[in-house]
Amino acid sequence: MKILVEVSARHIHLSEADFKKLFGSDASLGVKRNLSQKGQFLSDKKIDLIGTKSVIKDVSILGPFRKDTQIEISLTDSFKLGVKVPVRESGFLDDTPGCKITGPCGQIEIKKGLIIPKRHVHLSPESARNNNFKNSQNLLVRINSKERSLIFLDAVVRIEEYFTDAVHIDTDEANAAGIESNTLCEISGTEWI
Amino acid sequence: MKILVEVSARHIHLSEADFKKLFGSDASLGVKRNLSQKGQFLSDKKIDLIGTKSVIKDVSILGPFRKDTQIEISLTDSFKLGVKVPVRESGFLDDTPGCKITGPCGQIEIKKGLIIPKRHVHLSPESARNNNFKNSQNLLVRINSKERSLIFLDAVVRIEEYFTDAVHIDTDEANAAGIESNTLCEISGTEWI
Repeated sequence: MKILVEVSARHIHLSEADFKKLFGSDASLGVKRNLSQKGQFLSDKKIDLIGTKSVIKDVSILGPFRKDTQIEISLTDSFKLGVKVPVRESGFLDDTPGCKITGPCGQIEIKKGLIIPKRHVHLSPESARNNNFKNSQNLLVRINSKERSLIFLDAVVRIEEYFTDAVHIDTDEANAAGIESNTLCEISGTEWI
Repeated sequence: MKILVEVSARHIHLSEADFKKLFGSDASLGVKRNLSQKGQFLSDKKIDLIGTKSVIKDVSILGPFRKDTQIEISLTDSFKLGVKVPVRESGFLDDTPGCKITGPCGQIEIKKGLIIPKRHVHLSPESARNNNFKNSQNLLVRINSKERSLIFLDAVVRIEEYFTDAVHIDTDEANAAGIESNTLCEISGTEWI
């Protein structure tokens, strides 16, 4: 099955409580651009991440608010911050490290929430059914590029009614494949090269 | 065939003339640590790279001197520098961009020499013969890791009498595979998963 690759740059999902601490109780999270996944948007606001070794400035906030604050960075970013961060699926925040976050109204410290997003495949139920893919299954993702073609071996499938078909990888993975966002790739549950 | 993966961090090979301009005519390039490939070493000196967008400080110089100055960075680094850099095999510098380089004795500007190193496999003639691999052939490199296993599809083989068997990838590729240096991987010229 051919499917779009979307490259996730570093970003943060904030809880409403953490947002208010960083931007003030009267602030609101505006929409700068809607993302491909329904209801998700790039907001009009950014924060800085403070690690033990350095600061990463101007990290985009994605909306809407979530129950728990979650920060998704690349392994490259984690070395820069000086924090050991695990590869995790979204929402699995137990035993993840935290960091300090600075906004225009102050600084907070979260105790957990930093992850390197595990590559994954968003599928609508119809696409999953048509290709016989099951939720949580690991798929192979083949990306062809001029100099750096590769196959990612363990891209986990997530199926939801409101999902748009897309493979999500991070910037390290995109750079290793020599592509930018919005490239097509091939996904397969079976073995092939 | 199982073989060591070595991760190349950003580095520069300098011509002797460029070295003298940066460090002075009396300076010499000392050995900090020998590298796995015979005769190659991490030197005791560093320079700064000046791009159009930002500076990358403290880039290691590898020795010995080469005929032409060559800078090997990651795609991540190229975005940071603000320079569009092609993926190339070592030594193929036609139509590559240059940049400014700063050392303790001054700054030079090179007109070409910036590359993103194409992933490659160093093999001794004996290892190549035993596995029926030919020079310039593209091999598959399978790296297994806890969360980010993958197969690189186009790793070019280089065979030389003095080579130590090793796959060389850059930091983006290592991060995409979730590994650090000195991991074992599997190389193959035929199809398999």
